Formats: sequence, structure tokens, C-alpha cells
Amino acid sequence: MTDKCFVIGALLYEDYDILDYNGTIRFLGSLYEEQNLNVKIITISQNGGKYDSRSQCSNWSDYSFDNCPEFNVLLIPGGRGYIKHGIENPVLMDFINKWIPKVEYVLMVCTASAIVAKTGHLDGKNATSNKTTFDTVVCYGPNVKWIKHARWVVDGKFYTSGGVSAGMDMVLGWISDVFGEKYALAASHFAEYVWNSNPALDPFSGMNFKQNSGILDFQLSSKC
Amino acid sequence: MTDKCFVIGALLYEDYDILDYNGTIRFLGSLYEEQNLNVKIITISQNGGKYDSRSQCSNWSDYSFDNCPEFNVLLIPGGRGYIKHGIENPVLMDFINKWIPKVEYVLMVCTASAIVAKTGHLDGKNATSNKTTFDTVVCYGPNVKWIKHARWVVDGKFYTSGGVSAGMDMVLGWISDVFGEKYALAASHFAEYVWNSNPALDPFSGMNFKQNSGILDFQLSSKC
Repeated sequence: MTDKCFVIGALLYEDYDILDYNGTIRFLGSLYEEQNLNVKIITISQNGGKYDSRSQCSNWSDYSFDNCPEFNVLLIPGGRGYIKHGIENPVLMDFINKWIPKVEYVLMVCTASAIVAKTGHLDGKNATSNKTTFDTVVCYGPNVKWIKHARWVVDGKFYTSGGVSAGMDMVLGWISDVFGEKYALAASHFAEYVWNSNPALDPFSGMNFKQNSGILDFQLSSKC
Repeated sequence: MTDKCFVIGALLYEDYDILDYNGTIRFLGSLYEEQNLNVKIITISQNGGKYDSRSQCSNWSDYSFDNCPEFNVLLIPGGRGYIKHGIENPVLMDFINKWIPKVEYVLMVCTASAIVAKTGHLDGKNATSNKTTFDTVVCYGPNVKWIKHARWVVDGKFYTSGGVSAGMDMVLGWISDVFGEKYALAASHFAEYVWNSNPALDPFSGMNFKQNSGILDFQLSSKC
């Protein structure tokens, strides 16, 4: 248990995934709301204001890259836009590059690990990512020690998760590591969420989505 | 499987829960994005624009009550504001009252069932709600057949769920009922979500949050 103050800088970019973003913030935000811990969330994007997800639904960012206050935890969602609006956006990459050395933790959901891998900050580190797009993601970090079979992976201050929903398990893991397991359990129970608390338990890494679902009529590129 | 077109009217109000809202929309939105089904999401609130959740994070609503287009599924989140900004807001209650008879389905997450119960539309129907606030919720619907031990409950066109995360299981249940189980499985697998597909399996209804967590230092009112 720590009495340190954490300010979570929650990054938005176009075509992010709303569950990557709001699922993790729900649990992080509950630490203040429900458990009186000194944790604050600030929402940040390149220009501030409204950003559209892939789900016909939008979040609002209170701060832009130019006016955001200090924060000490960086939260990055994944989503369909992780290449076009993440890796291929030099302004966003500069922002991430500037803040990673300054923050105490970097929490990456789903394909956010590809964005950070591209900066080089994950070189030599263990990390995971979305399982459907895993073969694409690893191309952005040839020097990262990628672990496919993992719900989430911790290496120092870097937390990476599997796809979408795995981010919720990961932030509960972060809460457990930083504040203690009982805080993670309280957060999950209060939200009636069944926390997969074992980062090595990953039901999805061996799944061939196309074969198993029988209906997904596309396959994301697995070519570098 | 149906080829019917569904337009989901996703309602926002102040102090809603972001996981109630974005978790369900994530799966509903994926039906179009990932599975080419004819499902559209529209975000609606009393005045349109930005609405703040309890988690220091905000969503954007594209339409107001006055200018929203037709929809045939009403999605209502719960959240801390369900009484003050829901039940006690006559404009919102009028909007819900107007649309419930017109839509084909009403999907209620968490304490949203209390809002709809207050309208009388759930009278004589089976329904469930958030487990921590269950004793409060039931006061708003004395003629509802409340079922505490349930992850979600279906009665005709009315779908109600347990707290927060249970909403994701419920909408996957709705997807299964309307389109077929393989579509629900595809949606959950692609988001790396372990779907609790049994509505009767509820790990939280018997839990005393105060005792089990050991740290939640408040107890929501259970008095009518």
C-alpha cells in the first residue's frame, strides 16, 4: 500500500477502442470514487475535445498536448487507429516519447504496445499485445521480447495487455501491485467484474478467430 | 438470424457509469464493424454534447432529445446519477416514456432498471439490477418481479442486468437471442472477453461487499 498521489494521463486518438479506454478508466477512476485513494484521471489528446472511436461513440478529452498538466502514469488505449493515428502520427509519437521517461508507469492496452514498441522504449523488455493482430504488432518492435501467451505482462514500469478486455484485468493487476490485492478485488467486485487475476492465464492466445467463430469474414494482416 | 436493421439509441445522462455505457456499445458497435450486420449506434442525451461520468471521463452525445432520429432499441446505462439525473429528471423520464412503447427492445444496464421501473413499464415483469444497491432499486418498482440472483434477466422486450460489467454479458445475450450465438461468441472472442453466457450464473448476488472487500468504507443506502 502506498499513499503516493497518482495522476493518470489517459491518451485519446482517433479510432481508438472505447472498451480499451473506458474499461480501464472505470477501474482506475473507482480508486478515488469508491476507495478514497489519491488517484486522479486526466483525459488528453493532440487537440483536446471530442475524439471518435470505431464504435460510433465518442469520448471527450479535457486537455491537449500543449496544455495538459503533469501526470505520472501514462495510459494508452489500442484500437483500429493505432497505426494511422498512432504510429504514423509524429506529433503523438513525440508526445509519448517525451512523457515515457518522466512517468512512473506506462499502461498499454491491446495494440498500444505496438505504438510504444515503435518508440524503442520497449526494446529488451517483455511485452504482449492483441492476439488477433499479434503478428502485425511484433513487426513494430523487433527488439521487444514479445510473449504471446499472456493476459498481461509487467516489465518494470511497463504494463502491456492482450486485446481490449484484457486491459481491465491488467489495470486491476496494476492496482494490486501498487496498492494491494484487496483494493483490486474491491474495485472488481463493486463493478461486478470477474477479474482474471492470473496474468499467465490467457484463453485467447491459441485461438484461431476465423476458424472458431466461423463467421468473421476477414483476417487482419499478419504480414510485416 | 435476422436481417432486420437495428438502430440503438444509447442514452446519456450526467453521472452515468462509463463501463455500463461503453462496454455495451463496444459489443453492439462491433456487429457492424466486425461482422457486417445492419446495426447502427446513435448517442442521445437531453441537450446533446458532452456528458460527465463519475469516473473523471466524459462521453459525447451526437443528438439531443429534440433532434434524435428514429431508433428501435433503447440502451440505458446505470451509474451514480440514476436517481438525481434519471428518476428525478422529468424531461428524461418523459423521453423514456415516449420511446419505450415504440422500440423493439429496451436494454438496461445496472441501475437503469430502477429508472424504467419508475415509469411503470416493468410492472409485472421479471427484472434484475445492481447487487450492491438492490434494496434501494426495488423501491422504485414495487410491482416489478425482482430477481436478485441473476446476471441478466429477459422478459419480452425488456433486458435488465446486474451491476456495471454484467451489462456486457447481457448485450452479448441479446446478440445471441436476436442474431444467433455464433455472433455473440465472435464479438466476445474478438474483444478477448470471457463471456458469462449463462444469465443464471451470478457470482455477485450473495456477496456482502463490505465484509468481503474489507475496505469499502461506505455502504449505499438500503432503505426505501
